Amino acid sequence: MMKNFLFYAFFLSVGVYAQQTNEHLRKMDSLLNNNQKDTVSIAVLLYNNVVLQDFAGPMEVFSKAKNLTQGLYRIFTVGLTPGEVYTENKLIKIRPDYSLDDFPHADYVMLPGANISEINRLTKDQQLMDFLKTWNSKENTKTISICTAAYLLAHTGVLNGRRATTHYFVADDFSARYPKVHLVKDVRYVDEVKYLTTSGITSGIDAALYLVGKHSGESIRSMISRALQYNFHEKERWPQAPQGMKYDSRQ
Amino acid sequence: MMKNFLFYAFFLSVGVYAQQTNEHLRKMDSLLNNNQKDTVSIAVLLYNNVVLQDFAGPMEVFSKAKNLTQGLYRIFTVGLTPGEVYTENKLIKIRPDYSLDDFPHADYVMLPGANISEINRLTKDQQLMDFLKTWNSKENTKTISICTAAYLLAHTGVLNGRRATTHYFVADDFSARYPKVHLVKDVRYVDEVKYLTTSGITSGIDAALYLVGKHSGESIRSMISRALQYNFHEKERWPQAPQGMKYDSRQ
Repeated sequence: MMKNFLFYAFFLSVGVYAQQTNEHLRKMDSLLNNNQKDTVSIAVLLYNNVVLQDFAGPMEVFSKAKNLTQGLYRIFTVGLTPGEVYTENKLIKIRPDYSLDDFPHADYVMLPGANISEINRLTKDQQLMDFLKTWNSKENTKTISICTAAYLLAHTGVLNGRRATTHYFVADDFSARYPKVHLVKDVRYVDEVKYLTTSGITSGIDAALYLVGKHSGESIRSMISRALQYNFHEKERWPQAPQGMKYDSRQ
Repeated sequence: MMKNFLFYAFFLSVGVYAQQTNEHLRKMDSLLNNNQKDTVSIAVLLYNNVVLQDFAGPMEVFSKAKNLTQGLYRIFTVGLTPGEVYTENKLIKIRPDYSLDDFPHADYVMLPGANISEINRLTKDQQLMDFLKTWNSKENTKTISICTAAYLLAHTGVLNGRRATTHYFVADDFSARYPKVHLVKDVRYVDEVKYLTTSGITSGIDAALYLVGKHSGESIRSMISRALQYNFHEKERWPQAPQGMKYDSRQ
């Protein structure tokens, strides 16, 4: 029964499900020596004009991890805006599972990014800023920012004196705006334990794979990487802004 | 005005928006010599248990292309299941824009994948099979399958005698089940003009970037690739199934 579950879990993780031979079950079992005991719960904050890929990539990684660990990952969405939420360009309309006032226990709160006009608006959203301050002041809470959402964390001051990263294109601007934060370049993510920040859009996939590796082990991380046909990488030589353009969000 | 738009479009594409200097506008203008005239419309089919990353990646690429072309891309969702649709593991609940019976003109229909039990169920969904047969029998329609959705296309027979690809893990199974299809390995996508098939999950990003390159030119494709911090690639040495496992969906 256990063997069957583990086996199916893998096939589910690559999007496949079927009955297989005992030989295959034995092989699968030898791959999944996972000692994880605790559930990892992730609250994904959604708001209007959020970038779809920013949250979809990490959620997919955690979802595959859920399949491979007999449900040891719990992933749910939390609407910052009441009611339905739409992503940038109204690509999809989502009904969040919970609201910011009322969501269950979470080990991680994930903040996906948006364009800077939206991010600037969010830094003036008192409900969100209050939530982040309260949340981050608690012990044992962890916050993940994807792409430009690093601005939201930096705005509350919690990144002061810490290392952090953001989308390569706005990195210099981020540094100028938050000079007390130690910006790290040429990486996909930076782990400061309580605060994990990522670089641009798809680097959220790497950050999620990294976290799954920490909680569930390298073999499960590697299986998810293969299932997604995505090469996990921590470092990246960042692209150059076109023709050396300098971006300044404060102009 | 035009220059301003193009400039903002780029910043929107990397998730950023702000006023900039004329020097920057001049630089941006020299990058965007896009001769595209026609709108490209993409209908994304959604159904319960669809894999989130399968459609999120390509939609994000087309969305950035929309920003960079003054709206020359139109992206909308079409629910196969009536009402709300949930993705695999109920990660998110989506309200589709249209239903299969009634959606506007589309140049492309995109079919995201799911686990094989769900795909097998869909091959028995008469409404979907009828739709695909009718759609594909028309002139000038194009269909994109992501990951295991290649099974849906193959099931209707339209891939017979053509080249196609799917998730690496089920590739041998796909070949055994659809021997008249010429399976291509070690690629991210295969373009047969009327049918574009992709390999596993994240390879949908590459297929969408490829299509944007065709419609809007290489410089816009390259800008989106940088905006996503994603390295576009057509070829890939596929990973090996763990310990040489053989998958057979017909067992």
